[in-house]
Amino acid sequence: MGFWKNLFSSSDSTPSSQMMEEYEGYTPEGNDSTSPAARKPISSGRVFFSTERDIDLYELEELCNAVGWSRRPLRKVKKAIQYSFLVVSMWQMRGSQRRLIGFARATSDHAFNATLWDVVVHPDFQSKGLGKALMKFIIKKLRSDDISNITLFADPQVVDFYRNLGFVPDPEGIKGMFWYPD
Amino acid sequence: MGFWKNLFSSSDSTPSSQMMEEYEGYTPEGNDSTSPAARKPISSGRVFFSTERDIDLYELEELCNAVGWSRRPLRKVKKAIQYSFLVVSMWQMRGSQRRLIGFARATSDHAFNATLWDVVVHPDFQSKGLGKALMKFIIKKLRSDDISNITLFADPQVVDFYRNLGFVPDPEGIKGMFWYPD
Repeated sequence: MGFWKNLFSSSDSTPSSQMMEEYEGYTPEGNDSTSPAARKPISSGRVFFSTERDIDLYELEELCNAVGWSRRPLRKVKKAIQYSFLVVSMWQMRGSQRRLIGFARATSDHAFNATLWDVVVHPDFQSKGLGKALMKFIIKKLRSDDISNITLFADPQVVDFYRNLGFVPDPEGIKGMFWYPD
Repeated sequence: MGFWKNLFSSSDSTPSSQMMEEYEGYTPEGNDSTSPAARKPISSGRVFFSTERDIDLYELEELCNAVGWSRRPLRKVKKAIQYSFLVVSMWQMRGSQRRLIGFARATSDHAFNATLWDVVVHPDFQSKGLGKALMKFIIKKLRSDDISNITLFADPQVVDFYRNLGFVPDPEGIKGMFWYPD
């Protein structure tokens, strides 16, 4: 985890303590990837993670829309963010401007289990290692909060993505199940 | 859901509002099941559900121990109960005495998703429809709280039990996944 750099971390007394970290592995397009300078992009944009919850819901809706998710009532999205154990957003920063490029949140009992929901990376920023970086940030945060069981429900096309991060499907035959009304 | 009888229900202003309901479908052993009186057992014990959280942790540990679950730190169990969205306990009442015979809890974002954990029925009370009744109580409660997505992770031997209640394994190929450290 040597590529993380703490920029700001408030008191860790609550699980939801706000923090912001820069992801130093990001190489934006347009840079010469063979140049050492490409590894430290500045003017062309840097990527940050945040656990702050005051996210513009319209910006989040736009992000979810970009990956084809159906719209949800903002009132419920607001409540879900409020009552999630952990909310992580990923931002591209260019000068004083920031753009929401990724998001994920987790429900939890604050003791044993956490379940991830709404993991999303904007299509323009996919296949650059940012989804992996987002997930590693989340896992690190949950582990630091002493959560031992991190779970999720993966769509078929992202099972391998999560498998590469250490997630195991149906461990010991355990089945993820969803309830549907009769 | 005609077999439910509200005995006590406090204000429903919070999702965690306490309530207690009697399960009228319970027929304890020793009664003549062909007798009409067997359907309204009184002296031989009645079964109640409660959403109160002030559960004796040692009694809960005993229940979990009876089904072979490994012991967990009571400090963490207490925290998990505190931060669960819904906690349901099932009690056998005999006169003024009550015995904890079942338990389940759910984490949630209070908006879209709930995930069930620690669903347990004491072996002495299994195969009497009580697990089903417990689950129906939970589903009814979560639906009344406007939770649309009820999920769980089922051990292989209870997949059919949940399937009979309307839970679908791997719907549309969605995989339940657990994270394990490298």
